[in-house]
Amino acid sequence: MFELDKLKDECGVVGIYAPKDDSMSQRLCFGLVALQHRGQESAGMALLKDGKMKYYKEMGLVQEIFTKEVLGRLEGGDIGIGHVRYSTTGESYVSNAQPLVVNYKGGSIALAHNGNLVNANMLRDELEEQGSIFQTSIDSEVIANLIARNYSLGFKEAIIKSMERIRGAYALTIICGDNLIGVRDPNGIRPLVMGKTEGGYVLASETVALDVIGAEFIRDIAPGEMVIINKDGVESHMFSDNQRCAHCSFEYVYFARPDSDMDGANVYMTRRNAGRILAKNHPVEADMVIAVPDSGIAAAIGYAEESGIPYGVGLIKNKYMGRTFIQPDQSMRELAVRLKLKCFKRKH
Amino acid sequence: MFELDKLKDECGVVGIYAPKDDSMSQRLCFGLVALQHRGQESAGMALLKDGKMKYYKEMGLVQEIFTKEVLGRLEGGDIGIGHVRYSTTGESYVSNAQPLVVNYKGGSIALAHNGNLVNANMLRDELEEQGSIFQTSIDSEVIANLIARNYSLGFKEAIIKSMERIRGAYALTIICGDNLIGVRDPNGIRPLVMGKTEGGYVLASETVALDVIGAEFIRDIAPGEMVIINKDGVESHMFSDNQRCAHCSFEYVYFARPDSDMDGANVYMTRRNAGRILAKNHPVEADMVIAVPDSGIAAAIGYAEESGIPYGVGLIKNKYMGRTFIQPDQSMRELAVRLKLKCFKRKH
Amino acid sequence: MFELDKLKDECGVVGIYAPKDDSMSQRLCFGLVALQHRGQESAGMALLKDGKMKYYKEMGLVQEIFTKEVLGRLEGGDIGIGHVRYSTTGESYVSNAQPLVVNYKGGSIALAHNGNLVNANMLRDELEEQGSIFQTSIDSEVIANLIARNYSLGFKEAIIKSMERIRGAYALTIICGDNLIGVRDPNGIRPLVMGKTEGGYVLASETVALDVIGAEFIRDIAPGEMVIINKDGVESHMFSDNQRCAHCSFEYVYFARPDSDMDGANVYMTRRNAGRILAKNHPVEADMVIAVPDSGIAAAIGYAEESGIPYGVGLIKNKYMGRTFIQPDQSMRELAVRLKLKCFKRKH
Amino acid sequence: MFELDKLKDECGVVGIYAPKDDSMSQRLCFGLVALQHRGQESAGMALLKDGKMKYYKEMGLVQEIFTKEVLGRLEGGDIGIGHVRYSTTGESYVSNAQPLVVNYKGGSIALAHNGNLVNANMLRDELEEQGSIFQTSIDSEVIANLIARNYSLGFKEAIIKSMERIRGAYALTIICGDNLIGVRDPNGIRPLVMGKTEGGYVLASETVALDVIGAEFIRDIAPGEMVIINKDGVESHMFSDNQRCAHCSFEYVYFARPDSDMDGANVYMTRRNAGRILAKNHPVEADMVIAVPDSGIAAAIGYAEESGIPYGVGLIKNKYMGRTFIQPDQSMRELAVRLKLKCFKRKH
Repeated sequence: MFELDKLKDECGVVGIYAPKDDSMSQRLCFGLVALQHRGQESAGMALLKDGKMKYYKEMGLVQEIFTKEVLGRLEGGDIGIGHVRYSTTGESYVSNAQPLVVNYKGGSIALAHNGNLVNANMLRDELEEQGSIFQTSIDSEVIANLIARNYSLGFKEAIIKSMERIRGAYALTIICGDNLIGVRDPNGIRPLVMGKTEGGYVLASETVALDVIGAEFIRDIAPGEMVIINKDGVESHMFSDNQRCAHCSFEYVYFARPDSDMDGANVYMTRRNAGRILAKNHPVEADMVIAVPDSGIAAAIGYAEESGIPYGVGLIKNKYMGRTFIQPDQSMRELAVRLKLKCFKRKH
Repeated sequence: MFELDKLKDECGVVGIYAPKDDSMSQRLCFGLVALQHRGQESAGMALLKDGKMKYYKEMGLVQEIFTKEVLGRLEGGDIGIGHVRYSTTGESYVSNAQPLVVNYKGGSIALAHNGNLVNANMLRDELEEQGSIFQTSIDSEVIANLIARNYSLGFKEAIIKSMERIRGAYALTIICGDNLIGVRDPNGIRPLVMGKTEGGYVLASETVALDVIGAEFIRDIAPGEMVIINKDGVESHMFSDNQRCAHCSFEYVYFARPDSDMDGANVYMTRRNAGRILAKNHPVEADMVIAVPDSGIAAAIGYAEESGIPYGVGLIKNKYMGRTFIQPDQSMRELAVRLKLKCFKRKH
Repeated sequence: MFELDKLKDECGVVGIYAPKDDSMSQRLCFGLVALQHRGQESAGMALLKDGKMKYYKEMGLVQEIFTKEVLGRLEGGDIGIGHVRYSTTGESYVSNAQPLVVNYKGGSIALAHNGNLVNANMLRDELEEQGSIFQTSIDSEVIANLIARNYSLGFKEAIIKSMERIRGAYALTIICGDNLIGVRDPNGIRPLVMGKTEGGYVLASETVALDVIGAEFIRDIAPGEMVIINKDGVESHMFSDNQRCAHCSFEYVYFARPDSDMDGANVYMTRRNAGRILAKNHPVEADMVIAVPDSGIAAAIGYAEESGIPYGVGLIKNKYMGRTFIQPDQSMRELAVRLKLKCFKRKH
Repeated sequence: MFELDKLKDECGVVGIYAPKDDSMSQRLCFGLVALQHRGQESAGMALLKDGKMKYYKEMGLVQEIFTKEVLGRLEGGDIGIGHVRYSTTGESYVSNAQPLVVNYKGGSIALAHNGNLVNANMLRDELEEQGSIFQTSIDSEVIANLIARNYSLGFKEAIIKSMERIRGAYALTIICGDNLIGVRDPNGIRPLVMGKTEGGYVLASETVALDVIGAEFIRDIAPGEMVIINKDGVESHMFSDNQRCAHCSFEYVYFARPDSDMDGANVYMTRRNAGRILAKNHPVEADMVIAVPDSGIAAAIGYAEESGIPYGVGLIKNKYMGRTFIQPDQSMRELAVRLKLKCFKRKH
């Protein structure tokens, strides 16, 4: 499980198109809090109001960053996107926080990316060969450069052309011109859903964000699909023929919140079913089924239901344990580990 | 449940006697993180090293306050006590954070208090009549004044005399002279346990703090008991005859962590049994038993076990939802509520 | 000069009586910024509004502490006092910041003290003997205890009685009941002046604070005088017969701002005259008179005027050099010293 | 004078080449504190150690940003550059702080720029036309793009080629490969000096930075000169024929510190001479010459010397007045102005 902590392509994105709504920054903030489980390292949002782009991004949790004062400075917005980034070990800088906002020949563009490109280094080399400079180590900067170099084709073609170059996992929300754009990679590795509000549309990594923004779920963005949302409504482009659903199984098992629906399946139900199947295929004799919290709870309940072995609590997680203490010696390190997840010894 | 949020007498205390241990401030910190669920408003610790008292207290969570730098300044300590305070609505100031450290005729004294005195105002009036001044609104200041006015009796008698004057709930950890002192009110309303480390002793509101400090549970401090821990070991005084156990039921139902043991009973088991009894006495026809997280989970499991109705998850809590957003209008307020605790609609 | 940095009795106080003014906290803030040269360690203010006392104090500079948000929380006030404290080497805690606000039998009292009592330890012992406890190491706490123990005499007599007990330097601003009180020790060691605004009165350590609060200078508080300001105007009590002016010469030489007037003399003029007298009594042959900034400038100008030797700049102070860097080795320490005050080599 | 506050091209730069020195980040910090008067909005530094680039930049004063902890993270460095940026009204973001650090085909490059390009917008358009994206609004990003697009010529030619494209004022310190590079525009509008330490070289906007870094002044970088400092020593290239000294007069009058020497003239002496010339050309009858602090002091002294009218202090600046308070009404605004610079009324 600790290995999973090091996966770098785990993030959450959100996008809102709502020209007549005064509470854009507040709604983006709600959406990001709902997606906070997908990334606790940094958060940011970019808003377009009357053609002008404002943005703010910082290290930390959404509610720490977007104080009343910061939200005040971000007031107003017709289109907005937001991003939460996963806390990875090693170097993490605010310069790697998203959304990335750049100026290019076509105007301003803001990008928020959840995923991981497998050919990013190759594309960086190629772009540097053509004279590009890079200020961050995030893939969004590669994508922005590709779009900028294709600007003459118009933004739609420039984005599609860029998507054809990149390989790997990506769910993107983009502000470009007066459009909110959502893109999902041809394999549908990272999730992206669309919802509808009274005056507009919402894109988000998970359905849990729709609820708190005040949007109703419409549908998943399909693998290999780009949606363009503007004053004319929603326009869909399939930029890849060979889309085949290859969802990342960690989304269902570990990343996503249990109350989210993804590509037609509820996460909690999927986990519970996995537990049931496990019980059928690998029955054991035991007094009790206990879960490793939090992501293992649904599977444990499923295993208990199928096997008839009672479900109980055996491991307690300290929900106030933010960062791990760095300890000088082994005995203190062992105590520190007990702080986070504690085995709960009990007489039955 | 929201009313409970306003209970003001909920706190956590810890105390360590360990003259030869170099990691006093770190262990206090671990203990306080383990007790963080008992209070998130402020935290503090006081340490005695070679007869000199140092302390630090601040608003916020334990890990936010006790950074590497702050812990560095608190290095060294023979005896230490710590406190976490509950976040109450209304006014909350750092001046009300604990431990309270004062100088009096007998030297220095540090106090950490979990509880609520019912005759505090009367005692304040009486003390003010005698010329005392008050700088905080916490009961600890009343107790410190009482001890100071009885100093001529010696510290033991001074504390006992003071305990005879105060009425209500109190679990105290005190540094006085070269002694670590633990006191529990005659009704045993607030919990206090004692543990043993290699080189000393630990006092704490709950057994979960013992584990992470590296101490083994010895016993509960009895209602009406004062323990004095120093180089001669542990000395016990029963300062009240008519002790009768009148534990606060909220400790078992709501305040304490499920993996704590209190006065001979495990909190999780107590909650599960409550659920079982409820199922016997109040059977209902239902498809599923769901819990209000987090404190209701054990009872729901108990109800499910007894009734045979399957247990499942139906409400999801956002664990990253720190403070509640203050919202200007009703529609945004409604969305904000959904952020904290969300009903999880699902097709069975 | 570096020894002077360690003088601990250097502070600034201010007090405003203005029941109909809405900008109390803002004016206190202005006054404290004008007195910031008297103390950069901590600052605080206490305000009485409709009989209720609010206060805020913190480590740091006035403008860092009293942000827009903090001033907002302190809105409203009929009477207010403020304090800036000098940065001393060694331990400095927010618990030693002023004003000190306490409850006693007579109600609430807030005190701000500039000075240093010579019999503070003796009085502490005496008060502890009577059962008092102390939470800080500031003299204000001694004074508050004395007033509280004399409360039955009424506030005027209680304060006078307390002043008769304390020895040393003190300029005090006090809120007690609906009164703003100013007190100056019988020797007039620390300065205190009174000014008038449209709707009230102002007390301050130096006249420079009157200007920015919008008050006109009326007069100095006399040595051994207590003034009580309330809805009936200003009432004066001389609580000491043998007052003789024994101003601290460091006020004129070092502490005060050159544009302040103190006890009938302007600080700049006094310094210039000192320079002139020095030139008469100790003439030297030299090419140029240079000053050690900032306090030595006026004296150097006076010396130049009297001697006929031209005045010039020879030492430059880095005004952005806040704290001194702590340097690991000698060569770096020497460079760090040059940062603060640099000898300015020049070809004439 | 308030208009001057809005000049955007005022900054300070520093560069150190010292492969065997362990205190690189500390020396950069000293140099930036000495140049703090050239910019108080943001500060930053970039260090190259064993071919790897580290950097840190933030809003605020040098000493606030470069805490012990931050300097610790920047430990080690063979080559380093630093930058302080002026506080301009209007929008100021950390993304505009310098040095700018980018990756390009040739590796890593770090740039710190003092000045203002007059053809920046034209160059941005041209670069965007070629597919470049921009993430900041600083000229350094234009320069970095130009260098990147010329990378195939080798770094020297690439920089020279880039300098030939840009027009306006620039004093640059650059880390590129294992070289520290200093460049000054053909008109020499912004200052840049070179000094020598025991083990290396230093570049800085003003000589006052050399002193505190522990370097001895060698010479000014000439207008139109590029110096390349590396293990082989100092190499000089004149990249412009028609260099003519067109120093910005504000450097002497307002920006620079009086104890700096620039292009052969001392700033204090220059200001004093200006005052003398003014006295000759524009004699007046007056009782006293007073200066507008701080930049006007030397000129006032010169005027006094030449005219025989005595020099005195008439305006006092509050050195603790950081930001200007934003005041709700006119009367409070007027008081706030008095806080910053106060006319000093005195009876002669």
